[in-house]
Amino acid sequence: MVSSVLVGQRFGTVLRAYGKRSWLIRFNSSGKVHHVHHKNARQQFYPAEKLGLRDINENVLEAKYAVRGTIPMRAEELQQQLRRDPGSLPFSSIVSANIGNPQQLNQKPLSFYRQVLSILQHPEILNQGREELVEKGVFAKDAVRRAERLLKDVGGSVGAYSSSQGVLGIRKTVAEFITRRDAGEPAYPEDIYLTAGASAAVSYLLSILCKGRETGVLIPIPQYPLYTATLALNNSHALPYYLDEQSGWSVNTEEIESVVEEAVENGIKPTVLVVINPGNPTGAVLSVEAIEQIFTVAAKHGIVIIADEVYQENVFSGAEFHSMKKILRKLQKEHQGIYDNVQLASLHSTSKGVSGECGQRGGYMELVGFSYEVRQVVLKLASISLCSVVTGQALVDLMVSPPKPGDESYETDRLERETIHNELDRRASLLHEVFNSLEGIECQKPQGAMYLFPKLNLPYKAVQAAQHLDMTPDEFYCLSLLEATGICTVPGSGFGQEPGTYHLRTTFLASGVEWIKKWEAFHKSFYDKYRD
Amino acid sequence: MVSSVLVGQRFGTVLRAYGKRSWLIRFNSSGKVHHVHHKNARQQFYPAEKLGLRDINENVLEAKYAVRGTIPMRAEELQQQLRRDPGSLPFSSIVSANIGNPQQLNQKPLSFYRQVLSILQHPEILNQGREELVEKGVFAKDAVRRAERLLKDVGGSVGAYSSSQGVLGIRKTVAEFITRRDAGEPAYPEDIYLTAGASAAVSYLLSILCKGRETGVLIPIPQYPLYTATLALNNSHALPYYLDEQSGWSVNTEEIESVVEEAVENGIKPTVLVVINPGNPTGAVLSVEAIEQIFTVAAKHGIVIIADEVYQENVFSGAEFHSMKKILRKLQKEHQGIYDNVQLASLHSTSKGVSGECGQRGGYMELVGFSYEVRQVVLKLASISLCSVVTGQALVDLMVSPPKPGDESYETDRLERETIHNELDRRASLLHEVFNSLEGIECQKPQGAMYLFPKLNLPYKAVQAAQHLDMTPDEFYCLSLLEATGICTVPGSGFGQEPGTYHLRTTFLASGVEWIKKWEAFHKSFYDKYRD
Repeated sequence: MVSSVLVGQRFGTVLRAYGKRSWLIRFNSSGKVHHVHHKNARQQFYPAEKLGLRDINENVLEAKYAVRGTIPMRAEELQQQLRRDPGSLPFSSIVSANIGNPQQLNQKPLSFYRQVLSILQHPEILNQGREELVEKGVFAKDAVRRAERLLKDVGGSVGAYSSSQGVLGIRKTVAEFITRRDAGEPAYPEDIYLTAGASAAVSYLLSILCKGRETGVLIPIPQYPLYTATLALNNSHALPYYLDEQSGWSVNTEEIESVVEEAVENGIKPTVLVVINPGNPTGAVLSVEAIEQIFTVAAKHGIVIIADEVYQENVFSGAEFHSMKKILRKLQKEHQGIYDNVQLASLHSTSKGVSGECGQRGGYMELVGFSYEVRQVVLKLASISLCSVVTGQALVDLMVSPPKPGDESYETDRLERETIHNELDRRASLLHEVFNSLEGIECQKPQGAMYLFPKLNLPYKAVQAAQHLDMTPDEFYCLSLLEATGICTVPGSGFGQEPGTYHLRTTFLASGVEWIKKWEAFHKSFYDKYRD
Repeated sequence: MVSSVLVGQRFGTVLRAYGKRSWLIRFNSSGKVHHVHHKNARQQFYPAEKLGLRDINENVLEAKYAVRGTIPMRAEELQQQLRRDPGSLPFSSIVSANIGNPQQLNQKPLSFYRQVLSILQHPEILNQGREELVEKGVFAKDAVRRAERLLKDVGGSVGAYSSSQGVLGIRKTVAEFITRRDAGEPAYPEDIYLTAGASAAVSYLLSILCKGRETGVLIPIPQYPLYTATLALNNSHALPYYLDEQSGWSVNTEEIESVVEEAVENGIKPTVLVVINPGNPTGAVLSVEAIEQIFTVAAKHGIVIIADEVYQENVFSGAEFHSMKKILRKLQKEHQGIYDNVQLASLHSTSKGVSGECGQRGGYMELVGFSYEVRQVVLKLASISLCSVVTGQALVDLMVSPPKPGDESYETDRLERETIHNELDRRASLLHEVFNSLEGIECQKPQGAMYLFPKLNLPYKAVQAAQHLDMTPDEFYCLSLLEATGICTVPGSGFGQEPGTYHLRTTFLASGVEWIKKWEAFHKSFYDKYRD
């Protein structure tokens, strides 16, 4: 053990009193501490060492988050190399297809949103010729009206903490939206919690519901790695249930039942079941029947459902999104008593959909069926981080209540939304087509979300090459793709996949088709090199 | 154990196949499920129960956060009553002196900040007659320049996720600020992490450094309850070290040494020491000598210092703020070798100071002396919540780099800052004076932060009355104050205090002096009622 020193000169020997104690400190000629002696106890000591990984919380060490993992980190290095030396790589820019970050890839924010937020940040702007600003089209009239309502709701300034649950007026707007979305099934502001994106909601819920090693949380495989990461942080079990790729990544509740039973046999309490709908990374949209079956499992075993519904706006032609809440209410009406105790947390976010406002950190969760005490605990946990960013809360209001027919911004807004939606739809189809035309790739038809999750039937030689480099085969493919084309994706191993199968996740957010062509060319040469 | 059911009619008996199994379900006449029989196993089951508190993570149940605790919750109820029935209470509004939330209490945001943020949200505004907007004074020229630089730094839109560590250009501005603040001691953008206020930084650091029951974290008493709450969430020990009220809440490092030794004897590893400077709730500012002594303890025992320096701008005439980083560098130069392994995390926030932008959730931490591996873990943890809100990051840039002499906004900005600063200074002095003029109150002279933490020498009768109501005596005083005047404060028990002493924390942010007079009158009548 080392002891406290207060020294007055740089070398030689110093006697220093400190509190009731004193020490002899010896310095060598370069001024480094040589020895420190406790004068009374003759105890010898040195300054303590720095922390290493052995000193770190093991749960945090355990957590992995592939979306910002090794491949994206390598992409960042390449990006820096391109900045320093633009001609040094076989491509001139990185295509960040690893993360659903639309505005990084030049998706334009919706004008109505930004007009309102601009006024919220600087309401005085309206004092400086409000009519003129409206006349010149800087701000639409309905944007001014909305900003004024929101300013009133937040108590005058977006710079004040809101209540921890979120601004009441905004929670009312959310409740109205849910009621409309769910064909009149009522929602209530008391059940809405405004959060920093959906990630904060996941973090709150799992912190509360996980009791360490005794708790199990059912997660779909493949899954969004936020879930496994948060479970690792809470030292609880991820109980994987596999989605069936061949039937468009559908849910098999018989398998879920057996996962539940196995967990119970192993002394683990299955407490939560995570549903991602539309699916990330799969892009699948759940059928009403699948949702009903999931609720039946929940009712039977008292399992809380976390419904990650952040892609509810990202649904393509032919598919239909059904909210978990709406189906739950339907079941509760049709089968009295059976589903009354089901507890559902439904999450939404301003980061996805046609909003794509990732950096603004807006989101909400609706808690359905939870007891009063448990909701109070959620609120307490939220209050420890004070409140979610107030402009993000305002953005939730805008997302769930866009301009209506007759409003001044309606036509512009509708057009902007349609353009974004159609672009995504078009690129999803194109990419899907290209994948399925290529040797060794199979890709399910995308129904929603922002991703494709194609299966790579990799040649044995490629698998061997990966093993030599101590990589998983899908990681090897993604890294090769990145180094050759600058396209950054995430290996399927980051999301989970059936053992022995390999996938990758790519967004279809990057504009143009040039990058798709480059991918095609890379893929062909990769297979030419490694074909068995 | 209950089992899965899919029913097709509302009462009677139904046989339903589900997967490979089947059940008999009996309904009573009101449609409620009466019995459910597994057809083969004859097992009887019912829908499972809802979660109760017994199903919740005990660490979360354990966490307390007094700043939004019982007294503020009662204040919210009274607020609602005032809205419903304005004449029903002996006051017409709530004075929220419980939380440092300046803009809730009508502190005006700095114009320069808001002009820049307004442009960041809606850059197109500049296309609609930029010269005219500048000419009319809607936006100052330097606000436009700053917004354009920031837009470039964030990659074009505040709606895109930034890197998890934060926007590089903004981290550069922070590093320059720290270098200036610390008399030229260099800081580096690699060491800066942009966070959602300081709360997120505390949460990251304690999550990483706490390894459950084996870990102890030294916290000052009284403390900001975020620390005990976060420690409870991480199931680690709070190791209290008491600040000495009589000497202006000074730090006693001998006591810290003995807390460390006692912890070690009890098998607890003292891993972190929290310093809040300027102090919350005490308002004290640490001397250079105190800081030096703290670093000596840190060097000796390998204890990480978390320096909560969010009130560094809130320092009143006569006191001087010395950053922990500056003193550490001084020690490292003066005593080679001894302090080289010290690890310091310094936190700052846009919520306090003259910015007061609580709702915008901006902040940063600087990590000094941590190993590369540990910093990578911090980054991984930050990446799981993706990034802090980008407009909050921009606000950090504005806070640490306000307009300089010669800039178009300089004079206005300086004046706005001065006004806020002087107002706070004036009200702190006034409140301090009033407290010390009252029977049974002792209050240390405020040097910094936004709070006073007066000591209440409560009469025995008041203590008895509190006991009858199952309250702590300070809670009883605060509740009585609230019910009589609408002034909402936080009892000292929420922050910790020497056993047998009673305090409360109040901000001095509310404008005017009317509320102070009302407090005075209340206090006198309270003592008249309970005087021994």
